[in-house]
Amino acid sequence: MTINIPRGTQDLLPDVTGRWQLIEQTAAEICRQYQYKEIRTPIFEHTELFERGVGDTTDIVQKEMYTFKDRGDRNLTLRPEGTAGVVRSYVQHKMHGQAVQPVKLFYSGPMFRYERPQAGRFRQFVQFGVEAIGSDDPAIDAEVISLAMELYSRMGLKKLKLVLNSLGDTESRLAHKEALIQHFEPRIDEFCSDCQVRLKKNPLRILDCKKDRDHELIANAPSLKDFLNEESKAYFEKVQHYLDIMGIEYELDPNLVRGLDYYNHTAFEIMSNAEGFGAITTLCGGGRYNGLTEQIGGPTAPGIGFALSIERLLAALDAEQVELEVNDQVDAYFVAMGEEAKDKVVELNYTSRHSGLSTEMDFLNRKMKGQLKTADRIQAKYVVIIGENELQEGKAAVKNMHDGTQETVPLDEVINYIRKA
Amino acid sequence: MTINIPRGTQDLLPDVTGRWQLIEQTAAEICRQYQYKEIRTPIFEHTELFERGVGDTTDIVQKEMYTFKDRGDRNLTLRPEGTAGVVRSYVQHKMHGQAVQPVKLFYSGPMFRYERPQAGRFRQFVQFGVEAIGSDDPAIDAEVISLAMELYSRMGLKKLKLVLNSLGDTESRLAHKEALIQHFEPRIDEFCSDCQVRLKKNPLRILDCKKDRDHELIANAPSLKDFLNEESKAYFEKVQHYLDIMGIEYELDPNLVRGLDYYNHTAFEIMSNAEGFGAITTLCGGGRYNGLTEQIGGPTAPGIGFALSIERLLAALDAEQVELEVNDQVDAYFVAMGEEAKDKVVELNYTSRHSGLSTEMDFLNRKMKGQLKTADRIQAKYVVIIGENELQEGKAAVKNMHDGTQETVPLDEVINYIRKA
Repeated sequence: MTINIPRGTQDLLPDVTGRWQLIEQTAAEICRQYQYKEIRTPIFEHTELFERGVGDTTDIVQKEMYTFKDRGDRNLTLRPEGTAGVVRSYVQHKMHGQAVQPVKLFYSGPMFRYERPQAGRFRQFVQFGVEAIGSDDPAIDAEVISLAMELYSRMGLKKLKLVLNSLGDTESRLAHKEALIQHFEPRIDEFCSDCQVRLKKNPLRILDCKKDRDHELIANAPSLKDFLNEESKAYFEKVQHYLDIMGIEYELDPNLVRGLDYYNHTAFEIMSNAEGFGAITTLCGGGRYNGLTEQIGGPTAPGIGFALSIERLLAALDAEQVELEVNDQVDAYFVAMGEEAKDKVVELNYTSRHSGLSTEMDFLNRKMKGQLKTADRIQAKYVVIIGENELQEGKAAVKNMHDGTQETVPLDEVINYIRKA
Repeated sequence: MTINIPRGTQDLLPDVTGRWQLIEQTAAEICRQYQYKEIRTPIFEHTELFERGVGDTTDIVQKEMYTFKDRGDRNLTLRPEGTAGVVRSYVQHKMHGQAVQPVKLFYSGPMFRYERPQAGRFRQFVQFGVEAIGSDDPAIDAEVISLAMELYSRMGLKKLKLVLNSLGDTESRLAHKEALIQHFEPRIDEFCSDCQVRLKKNPLRILDCKKDRDHELIANAPSLKDFLNEESKAYFEKVQHYLDIMGIEYELDPNLVRGLDYYNHTAFEIMSNAEGFGAITTLCGGGRYNGLTEQIGGPTAPGIGFALSIERLLAALDAEQVELEVNDQVDAYFVAMGEEAKDKVVELNYTSRHSGLSTEMDFLNRKMKGQLKTADRIQAKYVVIIGENELQEGKAAVKNMHDGTQETVPLDEVINYIRKA
């Protein structure tokens, strides 16, 4: 009996991993230029971290976490997102005391949410994200946004929409919360049971509800925009000012609410505008999370970050028909005829790779015809043929697969010949 | 209250991740040259896969797995090693039918074993490995071994020991198993309870027991070497022959038994010889696993692979005092004095990065002195100072931090100036 992959997960096979590598390398290179350094936190954390750090009213924590006990009876959870672990690490390693501030970090790796599997949505998925902790300068909000845009633009995406909102500071948010409660409370029984719980704990999340999205009270709910205090307004204007300086276009959307509890001030999403991209157009989401470090037991330190899905980036590339150029060039394929020739081929193949070439040989004891077929399939630039005659003469037949020409090359010059070509 | 990292796991912080990236990039580049393509399988699999694929008499399966039920009541396990998942994927995606054979794959990622935490041993650790499935040519055994050696040598390790053994084919192994049972059975009550179970199921693993390692019957146990049939001997000699051709040195160790159940024929380990490297000297282990594809429900397909730990590779580099050159160069730090100058700095910083430079600015509204201090700390090559005067004159003061010289450069030429330098 065969054993299949767990439901909702996927294998990334060699026909796609080259593109993944390219995206991840580009992301790492941009982070190097932007002075964001890589951090790798564990795949699982104590469950409590996500309850406190993601927010216990969120769908993620309530319905979607992979939680289990280890053999030492600890409650552990496969990370559903990257920020909580990074902030936990920031607090644990006392990074607020580091000489260079703010602390700018990036991560890339698998995240886990037990959701209903559907097209383009997996229970294990990969997020790349950055976190800048220790600055509340609006210029760093703009920097974080520009970093995400830079990645998309370097990969070749053109049809992008950046949407911005301000969720305001604590004072603004409390005033808005009060207004929302007054708005929804008289008719809350028309809403789903989740929303009824949300009303008192976090009424903002009612606006985000998938079940009640068409209720008339959603459309005319009080907008946070009207409750932003002067400081919050000034902050948001400054963020926009810096984006203007960078020449990055955006739209304001007062209804943009991020799905996690911890955001305040700047919230943003980047969407694909490409035709036929499908229902889920959001490629990247992020925002400011002042207060999160305290929430998980650390010192006060304002932060901002984003997370983006590599799967969706690839889907957007497909939608815009952007081809990524993956380097899978094979410089030479060595064909051996006979045992002694094979010894020579083993040696040349090994030495070629050691000298930096990308080469291959046969491992199935196939006849010449079969070996040539494979050389053709993997699009080797040169085929080097060594039989008994060639071996005796100390030469090889080197065939240029591009133009079909063939030359006889001394065995000890074969590698140089291919290197120079 | 703070929340700490789960016991036995570690954060990889920016002071080390640059070295991780370098090793992973080198491994990926070598795999490209050797025609091994990346595969990414899920972090968790059905528990049954490891019971069948790793072997239910192994310590890994019996004691060390992170097993849990998901919300759909599936038995899942965080992968304790990489081969089972890759072979599961090979079978599920019918890779035996692909045009290019053998199928050559590599993987790199976290693995999980619930072991007693100790120096250099973590419950989450990273393995890089390759698998070549579909060939029983001894030349591919040599290729797989040479690939591991190539990685160590490119990273700069010199003090390495490659140890080889043959575990023989099924016939040889059965004959040896019979002899082992006869050898241990009369005195099996002197052995630990695990070994008593192993006697009938897999007596070879008694030789591997950590508790009974000093028992006299271990030292004089019948050696597999004396039970290898002609075919197995010939195969092993051919593997050695190809390693000789490559100029790769090795030692034969008839006692080398890999900890996993599935190995046969070639088994190998690469150890560090460096002084003061500590007790655990094995850096890499691998071998042939003909029969594994059938064991997990697939077609017959001979395979060979290895896995190596990035943590131990780093430890070996430390032991040999090899420094990896991580690129963390900062081309310029932009210092702004005043709000308007800051606008210009935001623009220059953004444009510099977009044009490929690695640059930084201040996000803490610090005075000039504080900004210069950071520029110095991150070892910026140039500091670009823009104050109100400079802004009015359309110029910046550009200081070379290496030699201390300073020049006045027009604002719209600053980026070119730094790029050329």
